[in-house]
Amino acid sequence: MDRQDDVLSLVLFSGTDDKLNSAGVLAVGAAAMGRKVNVFLQYWALDAFRADRVLKDHGVAPEAGNWGHELVQRHGTQHWSELFRQAKEIGDVGLHACSLSMEMFGITKDDLDPLVDDVEGGAAFIAAADGTVTFI
Amino acid sequence: MDRQDDVLSLVLFSGTDDKLNSAGVLAVGAAAMGRKVNVFLQYWALDAFRADRVLKDHGVAPEAGNWGHELVQRHGTQHWSELFRQAKEIGDVGLHACSLSMEMFGITKDDLDPLVDDVEGGAAFIAAADGTVTFI
Amino acid sequence: MDRQDDVLSLVLFSGTDDKLNSAGVLAVGAAAMGRKVNVFLQYWALDAFRADRVLKDHGVAPEAGNWGHELVQRHGTQHWSELFRQAKEIGDVGLHACSLSMEMFGITKDDLDPLVDDVEGGAAFIAAADGTVTFI
Repeated sequence: MDRQDDVLSLVLFSGTDDKLNSAGVLAVGAAAMGRKVNVFLQYWALDAFRADRVLKDHGVAPEAGNWGHELVQRHGTQHWSELFRQAKEIGDVGLHACSLSMEMFGITKDDLDPLVDDVEGGAAFIAAADGTVTFI
Repeated sequence: MDRQDDVLSLVLFSGTDDKLNSAGVLAVGAAAMGRKVNVFLQYWALDAFRADRVLKDHGVAPEAGNWGHELVQRHGTQHWSELFRQAKEIGDVGLHACSLSMEMFGITKDDLDPLVDDVEGGAAFIAAADGTVTFI
Repeated sequence: MDRQDDVLSLVLFSGTDDKLNSAGVLAVGAAAMGRKVNVFLQYWALDAFRADRVLKDHGVAPEAGNWGHELVQRHGTQHWSELFRQAKEIGDVGLHACSLSMEMFGITKDDLDPLVDDVEGGAAFIAAADGTVTFI
């Protein structure tokens, strides 16, 4: 079953490893089903996709505490960047950096991991999100 | 009006009482309208659904501060677990534990509150979410 | 292209300036495309929309740290309240205060910024969200 019409539009805002893992699982799952996936990287999620920071420790949600932080680090079988790489290999998955956030951080496309396809404005992202938006 | 076709797919990630309250209100509201509701419990939300932890204090969003924490505790008329119980009574509402998170915590179905129906992989959840996903 | 049928339903839960900025950008973008936008203000987002607090510093996501906090404050070209104002000017955008959260804070409609249209129950909001819900 091919469902190219059902675009999964993800706004990634948070930059902690647990949320990025969760987003990666959704992206891989949707790509495996033949759904188009559009990812918009803003704020702290964009910061986590900098070429020199992807593999660093980005912490976890505050409610997790030290116990949860260690749990996530210890359990991690696959890094979230690996999940997004897989999603791009098996499906039509685009990663777009938010132009406003790029400006705020004062960085250019070259500062980002090659997983990121391009820089885009919020209006363009919304225009492509014909259905709805999942905010993570 | 019956709207069984409009599935509300909720990914519960956060485990604080304020967000779980908010999720419970959405689940009850959608169930009352005859919409099918599919809930996927991950990370700290799954931890909050452990049988021996459901009724404990799970804190609130960090931005709330002590003032907000006390406010939520004092105001609470109905516990969020009660809202999910109601949602299940009035509608077609399924609560699924994320298999990866179960593994991370090293727990089994028996460790969870009976409100949780089963353990499921992320791919199965996404396959059932024909529309889009609300991430909380 | 007019897409009044595709309602963008936003539940605003978080009250930090970075998330409210992000929500404002989505609201403006959707309104510019002719989409109806329904915003439901809960918990800490509702608190941020109090008449006497809108322009105050509401902090940022905890993961941002001091570095990120300063970055957001320094960069801010347009306040998020300005984005919602623009969205209302160009499109069909409604801001509704959650009645349960109003009760929790012990406030009335008069305590809120005039941007907020009315007070509404969760069931009414869900009933209007015929598609899905974006939770921020």
